[in-house]
Amino acid sequence: MVVGLDQYLEQVRDVLRPGTRVLSSGLGAEEARARAAVAEAAAGRAVALIGSGDAGVYAMASPALEYADERIDVVGVPGVTAALAAGALLGAPLGHDHAYLSLSDLHTPWDVIERRVTAAAEGDFVTLFYNPRSRARDWQLGKALGILATHRSPDTPVGVVRNASRPGERVHLATLATLDPAIVDMYSVVVVGSSDTRLVAGRMVTPRGYRWRS
Amino acid sequence: MVVGLDQYLEQVRDVLRPGTRVLSSGLGAEEARARAAVAEAAAGRAVALIGSGDAGVYAMASPALEYADERIDVVGVPGVTAALAAGALLGAPLGHDHAYLSLSDLHTPWDVIERRVTAAAEGDFVTLFYNPRSRARDWQLGKALGILATHRSPDTPVGVVRNASRPGERVHLATLATLDPAIVDMYSVVVVGSSDTRLVAGRMVTPRGYRWRS
Repeated sequence: MVVGLDQYLEQVRDVLRPGTRVLSSGLGAEEARARAAVAEAAAGRAVALIGSGDAGVYAMASPALEYADERIDVVGVPGVTAALAAGALLGAPLGHDHAYLSLSDLHTPWDVIERRVTAAAEGDFVTLFYNPRSRARDWQLGKALGILATHRSPDTPVGVVRNASRPGERVHLATLATLDPAIVDMYSVVVVGSSDTRLVAGRMVTPRGYRWRS
Repeated sequence: MVVGLDQYLEQVRDVLRPGTRVLSSGLGAEEARARAAVAEAAAGRAVALIGSGDAGVYAMASPALEYADERIDVVGVPGVTAALAAGALLGAPLGHDHAYLSLSDLHTPWDVIERRVTAAAEGDFVTLFYNPRSRARDWQLGKALGILATHRSPDTPVGVVRNASRPGERVHLATLATLDPAIVDMYSVVVVGSSDTRLVAGRMVTPRGYRWRS
């Protein structure tokens, strides 16, 4: 059987064999979906818990494995997470050290998030924001960019990719000084360069070394 | 034509069309390989610059795009970087905020690397080490783990995956207190948990929230 978010199940429905049982649920039901997948596996069924991107990155692998015990065999299938799809579209922003941060304070209090943004700024990591902004969370991205701006030049390149590898894919390049957070939504990933990241021929590039070659 | 490291070209040789030109070079010739690929493209050829994992993550996309200018069309093809392959084998260590760090001081001086390890420790990021250890660089990993250990419990799970998704793949689980750096080599990626990462049924899991559910 196949368990997943309704919109992802729509994307694979044509490759399912006739008779495959499908358990679909809507956004926000992650816990229930993980529990259901594990319960079905514990009952002896072969279960595919599906997602988009990589199931291990801010996704369903964690809640499922919190519930799974030794009786269940689990095979993780890695995928292309949004940051890698976005990186390939922007150029090579992830060529050197980088940090992934979720700006969702649904599960994490803001002071923990702010401490992490500050650490990413102090470490001069290229910084990736997942869940950067939604209608209900409209100030966190601006605040996070403000923290990075105290450690990096206003000219630091920032890339925003919406719907990476999906219909409606859109790439936007700006800088820490010029990015308007209002163009960012929950379908976007935001990539802020380190102090070494440059625009080269319109592409965002972080060199492998810490300094540009002469 | 196809340009790449000799060992990766061997892996795709059976899918190349007869007559495809191949330009292969050995380890360490990254700059020359990038320049050659760009020069061939500038001369009008369709060039595939290949690598393993994701070409954008500590790999060939950066040096190639440093040399490419507006005359050349570039299409980045994202892939599964070693950390994602390793994460899927270990469980779900990348379920929340995490940082990628290279311990190679070939291009980056050690004080910059040490500052980044300290920032990753202070931010409580799950921490991924690429290029963690080689015969010539044998003390850096121990030093980096020592920095993390000043901020995290000795029981913090650490995963080492050697040859992820390749022949000879090997998974090793330890803790900050018990890991022997000597088992790590240049074909390995090292994943150090955050303060929230736990072993569940032998799998390394970082929950989506910042705290374990009761």
